[in-house]
Amino acid sequence: MTKPTDTPRASRRRFLAGAAKLSAAGLAAAGAAGRAIADNAKNLPPNVPDWTRQLGDGVGVRPYGHPSKYEKDVVRRTVPWLTATPESSVAFTPLHELDGIITPNGLCFERHHGGIAEVDPHDYRLMLHGLVDKPLIFTLEDIKRLPRVNKIYFLECAANSGMEWRGAQLNGCQYTHGMVHCVQYTGVPLKILLEQAGLKPNAKWILAEGADAAAMTRSIPLAKALDDCLVAYRMNGEMLRPEQGYPVRLVVPGWEGNVWVKWLRRLKVGDQPWYTREETSKYSDLMENGKARKFTFEMDAKSVITSPSPQVPLGQKGFTVISGLAWSGRGKVRRVDISLDGGRNWRTARIDGPVFDRACVRFYAEIEWNGEPLLMQSRAMDETGYVQPTKDALRKIRGVNSIYHNNGIQTWSIKPDGEVENVEVG
Amino acid sequence: MTKPTDTPRASRRRFLAGAAKLSAAGLAAAGAAGRAIADNAKNLPPNVPDWTRQLGDGVGVRPYGHPSKYEKDVVRRTVPWLTATPESSVAFTPLHELDGIITPNGLCFERHHGGIAEVDPHDYRLMLHGLVDKPLIFTLEDIKRLPRVNKIYFLECAANSGMEWRGAQLNGCQYTHGMVHCVQYTGVPLKILLEQAGLKPNAKWILAEGADAAAMTRSIPLAKALDDCLVAYRMNGEMLRPEQGYPVRLVVPGWEGNVWVKWLRRLKVGDQPWYTREETSKYSDLMENGKARKFTFEMDAKSVITSPSPQVPLGQKGFTVISGLAWSGRGKVRRVDISLDGGRNWRTARIDGPVFDRACVRFYAEIEWNGEPLLMQSRAMDETGYVQPTKDALRKIRGVNSIYHNNGIQTWSIKPDGEVENVEVG
Repeated sequence: MTKPTDTPRASRRRFLAGAAKLSAAGLAAAGAAGRAIADNAKNLPPNVPDWTRQLGDGVGVRPYGHPSKYEKDVVRRTVPWLTATPESSVAFTPLHELDGIITPNGLCFERHHGGIAEVDPHDYRLMLHGLVDKPLIFTLEDIKRLPRVNKIYFLECAANSGMEWRGAQLNGCQYTHGMVHCVQYTGVPLKILLEQAGLKPNAKWILAEGADAAAMTRSIPLAKALDDCLVAYRMNGEMLRPEQGYPVRLVVPGWEGNVWVKWLRRLKVGDQPWYTREETSKYSDLMENGKARKFTFEMDAKSVITSPSPQVPLGQKGFTVISGLAWSGRGKVRRVDISLDGGRNWRTARIDGPVFDRACVRFYAEIEWNGEPLLMQSRAMDETGYVQPTKDALRKIRGVNSIYHNNGIQTWSIKPDGEVENVEVG
Repeated sequence: MTKPTDTPRASRRRFLAGAAKLSAAGLAAAGAAGRAIADNAKNLPPNVPDWTRQLGDGVGVRPYGHPSKYEKDVVRRTVPWLTATPESSVAFTPLHELDGIITPNGLCFERHHGGIAEVDPHDYRLMLHGLVDKPLIFTLEDIKRLPRVNKIYFLECAANSGMEWRGAQLNGCQYTHGMVHCVQYTGVPLKILLEQAGLKPNAKWILAEGADAAAMTRSIPLAKALDDCLVAYRMNGEMLRPEQGYPVRLVVPGWEGNVWVKWLRRLKVGDQPWYTREETSKYSDLMENGKARKFTFEMDAKSVITSPSPQVPLGQKGFTVISGLAWSGRGKVRRVDISLDGGRNWRTARIDGPVFDRACVRFYAEIEWNGEPLLMQSRAMDETGYVQPTKDALRKIRGVNSIYHNNGIQTWSIKPDGEVENVEVG
């Protein structure tokens, strides 16, 4: 096997023999030009900035790159008092500092229940057993040798916006809505693995289990597993990040993030759900009457204005672009509306960029702002005809006991000085 | 203005008052569960791996995340002997280690001519002048307040595969084809800026100039500038990386990377091209007869099999997925064909994932490999009907003096032991 690092050295001889002219004429000259630039710099007028006056960082191309030092505040944030120990934590995507629909991997929201497992890919195994003809164990290499697909999907935690059930709480869309991200996954359709194992006639459910210390487990109906679930190992081209389940996670399009089991080590086929901890005492919706809804898998259509928002106030009056994200676990987002007066009047926003099934879409609305107070809202509609409800409409049905599946319309109050606050309307 | 870091603290009081039950019941319990896990670990059988036995890294959620330590070799690579000084350098995308169509920002190919400029976004200015009614200077905030769009485009350096003109040279698709990447850009249509300034009747060309020490300059026809160019400031959601022109670069869809001027500081409107250094002595195609083609802007349709390839040999016999990338500067890729016998027989590959105008597409072909030697090739066709040519067909027209615009079909020789070598066929 040719080691990647050996390659330039190994081919250097051939290169020098066959293409010396290229090196001399076509490429090295740029270095001479660089020196000429440096010599000329002393003749430049004093108002020319340093970055033009001096050669830039010549050893600055990091093998794995990072954002500019001026973007150091564009980071995921945790809320330390939210969980009892850091081994059970949430890091929120800085939605207010992003645009488009792709979340860069370094900024993707992440939730873990027993710390971030560090799985050695060589020792990684995925077991598939239960009501199958032939139990199977896959290595990572086995999985990588199977037919794969590429899909852009959003992932949202069921608890996203969960603290808003009892009224406006956190002042920033990073905290109110930042438990969501959207990337391109590469993985094997789960159906292919199940077909390799062969399903028994009474197979109805799948248990997915993580290899982390929490051994996260969730029950998933077999119909969903056969429909569109992926055993994924890449996000945005590269291998999954450790906190996203490296090397393998389940992708369950449109469903709450908790079932997208990370560090996936086991799939068991059964004839009924397992009612694990994470789908009974947790991740079930406690209703007004004290009973809990079980298996609220699908994420309803939702949207949020990411800019302006409390962390990115309106800098000045005049022409301004309102920017936001919308998504639906039931298919494509068809339309997003914007209100500037707390939901009395609505206008249709401009959706820009690709619209994928169960992915984030980006919407914009351009306004002239004269400094008057505004109550900004957005509301998403998906291809099933579902319309994102108000928080009050949700509360009428669900009460305020739950911390999950709050997809109510978010209101930002814009003050005359441009400051933005999380408020409740009506 | 609410500082983002103040937010949790500022809302803590409200949270504690209004939602104490949530904290206790819904979230903190996970920490207790974590301790229970640790207590239980001593009862686990000895073959349970450490990542299940012990709580994972609880402080491991970095504000800005990184790949797993096991992926440390998935990096951009430079070829130190390729340029005279590091201030003029190329970092190649590890195409062989990626999949899908999105390149993660940290791994995007990058070429610079005078080092990597470090521009302070507060002092950033873009001047628009020349044959306009009203010369304008934009701050970064001015640009961010204009209507914006999101587009997924490939960017390829004109010199990509340039060393292959004289025969197979570099042994790895990172080096032969790694001067390409594909991300989602967010930016303002250049047309909007030009309309704000107002074009004089005799306006025909635009000069784009970078703020780096090389002050990179290129001439672009006005028709292209008005058609689809973007003044972009984001890639994959976040601000441009320093080496990609932070805070602002030109996006010139489908055209050679050199005209996508980075650290964009000036746009001058004129009535003819400027014939700058980077479009005369460099980035022009020297033909067999010693004359040079000027302005070869468009990147022709091209493809490469990224796996297997010299850096990722075939690990074992049996079922294998061939994976590759294709792109065209003239529109959408319509079809990709695969040959296993050096171009004698062809089969149509499966394109998977979205197909955008002038973006990379991912293709696959599944094969059973029995250990026989193969000569693997791919050939792209775009929506104009253009078919990627052989390298020999290119040489017949263009000779071997150029280092630019080599889009010839790449051949990988697969040996019986699975090793892969860059070879020439016919």
